[in-house]
Amino acid sequence: MVEIIVAKNAGFCFGVKRAVKLAEDSSKLTLEGKRVYTLGPIIHNPQEVERLKSKGVIPLEGQELHEGDAVIIRSHGIPPDKERQLREKGLEVIDATCPYVKAVHEAVVDLAKEGYFIVIVGEKKHPEVIGTLGYLKESGGKGIVVESLEDLKEAYRYERVGVVSQTTQSEKFFKEVVGELALWVKELKVINTICNATSVRQEDVYNLAPQVDVMIIIGGKNSGNTRRLYNISKSLNPNSYHIETPDELDPSWFEGVKRVGITAGASTPDWIINSVRDKIKKICSELSLSSSSR
Amino acid sequence: MVEIIVAKNAGFCFGVKRAVKLAEDSSKLTLEGKRVYTLGPIIHNPQEVERLKSKGVIPLEGQELHEGDAVIIRSHGIPPDKERQLREKGLEVIDATCPYVKAVHEAVVDLAKEGYFIVIVGEKKHPEVIGTLGYLKESGGKGIVVESLEDLKEAYRYERVGVVSQTTQSEKFFKEVVGELALWVKELKVINTICNATSVRQEDVYNLAPQVDVMIIIGGKNSGNTRRLYNISKSLNPNSYHIETPDELDPSWFEGVKRVGITAGASTPDWIINSVRDKIKKICSELSLSSSSR
Repeated sequence: MVEIIVAKNAGFCFGVKRAVKLAEDSSKLTLEGKRVYTLGPIIHNPQEVERLKSKGVIPLEGQELHEGDAVIIRSHGIPPDKERQLREKGLEVIDATCPYVKAVHEAVVDLAKEGYFIVIVGEKKHPEVIGTLGYLKESGGKGIVVESLEDLKEAYRYERVGVVSQTTQSEKFFKEVVGELALWVKELKVINTICNATSVRQEDVYNLAPQVDVMIIIGGKNSGNTRRLYNISKSLNPNSYHIETPDELDPSWFEGVKRVGITAGASTPDWIINSVRDKIKKICSELSLSSSSR
Repeated sequence: MVEIIVAKNAGFCFGVKRAVKLAEDSSKLTLEGKRVYTLGPIIHNPQEVERLKSKGVIPLEGQELHEGDAVIIRSHGIPPDKERQLREKGLEVIDATCPYVKAVHEAVVDLAKEGYFIVIVGEKKHPEVIGTLGYLKESGGKGIVVESLEDLKEAYRYERVGVVSQTTQSEKFFKEVVGELALWVKELKVINTICNATSVRQEDVYNLAPQVDVMIIIGGKNSGNTRRLYNISKSLNPNSYHIETPDELDPSWFEGVKRVGITAGASTPDWIINSVRDKIKKICSELSLSSSSR
């Protein structure tokens, strides 16, 4: 018997899973004759967006909104004034903002109220950061987004600085920013808002890849986080393969194999992971039958 | 004319200068028949300690204290229970604790009251750190002294961590500690209590040494911070000399010289710096007379 081990942390992170679930639940509103939109694609996975579209959950691309329509805020969140505008239009707002992102909003507002100048470690144009900046602005606080140590200089003029992070920020850069700031300002308050979804997925691969005969990594070929998982796996186990769908599985990979490991990038839905697992099971049982019949 | 430039930041730091001044003022108490002691040598400079001794300010080395004696707390500070014991004995306590060290005590007490687990970045056996730990203990707070990243692990168990530093801590290590902690704990509050006396002395040498023909560095041959000033100077200007007293000045160093730079370690009193400057002036004017008489 072949043993198939799916990494403990594989595929959707908590916030994406929750957002997709909310979108799916909202599709029922179409039965009441409502139109259901998502503000931008709910997830960067075309198959999943198509699946939800078939259920009536449509990405907003310039369509005119009418009172009573439902609008889903995706996991990145949006600025509070944007959310108010939606509500004032009489739309039904379904807030799928990731709770970890909400925690960043709260941290920024609290720090601003305590009088800190805010440093948001993150990408200036990322929708999550744009949302967080909206909360900072609304609280009446002052702050900047820091992409490089060069950006940080503006913060050195302040005595009391509060730091938060975009949830998907790299730990390495966050650490550098906090260390520099600690030398320049008198008082520094840091709320670590990095979500560990990426790092735990990578850690799982470090653990799993050396223990198995073959390692299958599922996710878009254009998905950065999936490619990083594949590279880690390949460095530890030469029999590592990066696929998007079960159709790409090659039976020859599994000949004489006892243990198969599976993981998936953060934008890969469970149903794709499951179909891959089922296909591997099938391939392996066919291989075993043909070898025992020899 | 030879130009002699004394570095802006040379010799005693603010806290040491203040402690020596308080010791000097206290010597007047001997006129009232009081005995005046310092808790340990007030400064690591034997000439200065001798000078104060001659005025009646005696380092405490096991002498029995009597009610009415005066006791000087040196710039490092002491734990609050020790100070209370002195006062309860009926001694006159003269507190020469450096105000920057008092700021560390206050920061630790405030952070402990706010419920933070305290990390003191510093040397476990340094008298300043022992004093600070006393204030932490008295406030009912919990914390550790961190000399290495290994020591830091104990702090990872806590969600909210407050950080202060021994005033003479290296900026590099402080930055490392703060960066690591920011990744491990949920909320980090850092009060940067590093005193910049050492770094500004070094910066001055970086600026001054390349501008002068000869650079004179004054301070004990066994003084670490003076040796570091000398090494920086030597790397920028080969005509750099480390001396303890004016007697070591060699007239040949000043032949044909137009500009002389002077600096001194943090334990070098002004009167030694001044006597070196006067001696250089004298040497240079003698050299100029002998060259014009040729």
